[in-house]
Amino acid sequence: MIQVEQALSIIAENSTTMPVQKISVQKALGYILAETIYSPINMPPFRQSAMDGYAFIHSEKHQYDVIGISQAGDHTDIKLKENEAVRIFTGAFVPKDADTVVMQEHVMANENSILITKMPKQFTNVRAKGEQIVKEDVVFEANTLITPAAIGFLACLGITEVEVYKKPKVAILVTGNELVKAGKELPKGKIYESNSVMLQAALQTIGIKKVKSFKVKDNLKATKKALKNILPKFDIVLISGGISVGDYDFVKEALLENGVQELFYKINQKPGKPMFFGSKNETLVFALPGNPASSLTNFYIYVYPAIKNRMGFSDIHLPKLVRKLNTGFINTTGKTLFLKALYDETNVTILEGQSSAMLNTFAIANSLLIVPHDKESLKKDEQVTLLPIN
Amino acid sequence: MIQVEQALSIIAENSTTMPVQKISVQKALGYILAETIYSPINMPPFRQSAMDGYAFIHSEKHQYDVIGISQAGDHTDIKLKENEAVRIFTGAFVPKDADTVVMQEHVMANENSILITKMPKQFTNVRAKGEQIVKEDVVFEANTLITPAAIGFLACLGITEVEVYKKPKVAILVTGNELVKAGKELPKGKIYESNSVMLQAALQTIGIKKVKSFKVKDNLKATKKALKNILPKFDIVLISGGISVGDYDFVKEALLENGVQELFYKINQKPGKPMFFGSKNETLVFALPGNPASSLTNFYIYVYPAIKNRMGFSDIHLPKLVRKLNTGFINTTGKTLFLKALYDETNVTILEGQSSAMLNTFAIANSLLIVPHDKESLKKDEQVTLLPIN
Repeated sequence: MIQVEQALSIIAENSTTMPVQKISVQKALGYILAETIYSPINMPPFRQSAMDGYAFIHSEKHQYDVIGISQAGDHTDIKLKENEAVRIFTGAFVPKDADTVVMQEHVMANENSILITKMPKQFTNVRAKGEQIVKEDVVFEANTLITPAAIGFLACLGITEVEVYKKPKVAILVTGNELVKAGKELPKGKIYESNSVMLQAALQTIGIKKVKSFKVKDNLKATKKALKNILPKFDIVLISGGISVGDYDFVKEALLENGVQELFYKINQKPGKPMFFGSKNETLVFALPGNPASSLTNFYIYVYPAIKNRMGFSDIHLPKLVRKLNTGFINTTGKTLFLKALYDETNVTILEGQSSAMLNTFAIANSLLIVPHDKESLKKDEQVTLLPIN
Repeated sequence: MIQVEQALSIIAENSTTMPVQKISVQKALGYILAETIYSPINMPPFRQSAMDGYAFIHSEKHQYDVIGISQAGDHTDIKLKENEAVRIFTGAFVPKDADTVVMQEHVMANENSILITKMPKQFTNVRAKGEQIVKEDVVFEANTLITPAAIGFLACLGITEVEVYKKPKVAILVTGNELVKAGKELPKGKIYESNSVMLQAALQTIGIKKVKSFKVKDNLKATKKALKNILPKFDIVLISGGISVGDYDFVKEALLENGVQELFYKINQKPGKPMFFGSKNETLVFALPGNPASSLTNFYIYVYPAIKNRMGFSDIHLPKLVRKLNTGFINTTGKTLFLKALYDETNVTILEGQSSAMLNTFAIANSLLIVPHDKESLKKDEQVTLLPIN
């Protein structure tokens, strides 16, 4: 049995970065760049007006003849003289000789001429070519997260594809003869299977949509065969159930006989103690507890960082928050506790109903409060650490 | 021109909740329940063992004959006598007469009998029928957010469908003759169109995947026709560009002639001042500024809460955080500012490059720092409010 921190280190060490792939910028949200991107163009690609107004050659004069128009999208070869101006709009090409744009609010105009009522400084309202980025300059370094703004910036530079780290393909293998699919009549002694849809939803919250669920009978032969089929095809395998003392052995045996290396088994925590972590080649195997709340807790604490690490993230864990505890709490277990809790802007409340079999508390919680194994009591008003979820 | 707070109120008042729909529990992540859910079964549906061990009738005796086995998924009619026990596993049916389960670690066993070395209290390790929830009791109240844990809980009760508020269908209408699709050669005077893919990505971050993009030429007739087609088919219409003074009028005219009611135009803020908000029937129209950083800012500040409101959320805005400012800041504009910023656990730094045309700062920011319009300066180390993004 190991401590939570050791388990986290072992997972971080063993979860290698995924291979890279080219992907369309439109589909790249939430991926990590695997290459440094250089700009193929100057942005803006030409001198642009920052205002609706009039472009002119800056001078002492206040009166100008309007000899043309430059709308957004136009390219004009108009040549300006010193007493001439061009009607211009935001984003439009600034004619070659002009160096300044006066905004239309600072002008009196008739059909053919303007009088500038408030003279701007030279170069005002003209965005220089390459002001945002110069051709060949770095757009984003490798290992940058692709956000909506990053997608916008890449698109405005005309970039259509980028190289990113792939998302892992995840399999969920459900064991348990007692499990019946929802929608069917429930025979005596059976319960509805819920962990696979719950884990699929949890995976979806971090952008993993390619998930395949498998179900296997509680026996060695079937489990061995299922794993033999699954292991080479997936990057992460989550096994639900079959990991507490009574029936663990044959899941372990099935894993070992399939060449999975055990990296740890059992963590000094509650809920979620009976968990197995191993690997084969680059594939990671998490055998999660069958109890739903334990399973989901260990998803957030262990599977989440493993997936983030494989995707190339540098911050792989759930972000931590610190809040003031509303009531005291005693921890006599000697284990690290992950308690379902509700936090607001300043405080946090530990919820009733922390049983590992019960999901209803988890469903209304917005965080997991961490009580370290060597911390015997938390006092009211003490600052505590929590992990926001949902 | 109105203040930010007024704009937010008008949007909240005018964004009605979407109609409801039945949806499979598996696909319900991130939706808000439109009905109160009652449990169709007791959970657990029978008395369940919480441990691997032996079920027996609690007494003073320490020695018991093992007369049978109850595995998870079994239903046994075994009748126990006072000196008899049944081998049992976690989650398995506890035989009718038994009232207690002793964990296997507290037993010495041979093939046919056990000696209890540490006697548990009566009723230990037996989960009562309906302990988690009793048949007909409330599972979730209406207006609950469906989280991974909620999906797990619904599934374990055998519930396969729930009634939720629909997600809005969103259209993006891009205006601007200067815009060229990425991947093509860039003619003189033109720039690449980026707002539609950026807004699509931003919509994706809040679970809106059904988005359709349209492009229209900068003229009244085309815009009117496009809007006539789009307005009845979508719940939210985002128009990109055509909203600054120079070319606003014909977008406005096209909207008004299509029966869209103007609810406000222009907000006292920077970036993002030139924005139009209106509605027709239940459809909301946001004409966002064409400048990319303004467009994305207004997405987070205004479109985001409108969508959350339509989906039935009670907390509709981005959550607010408070952090200590790393450097002072002067606001001479009299406007509310939304500044791209980077925060960590304690502090926040305002980034360089706040221009409304530039997305590169936005791409590396993790928050928008709010400077209220009537706040002329922020001091170093002052506590400031920010909205986390990405």
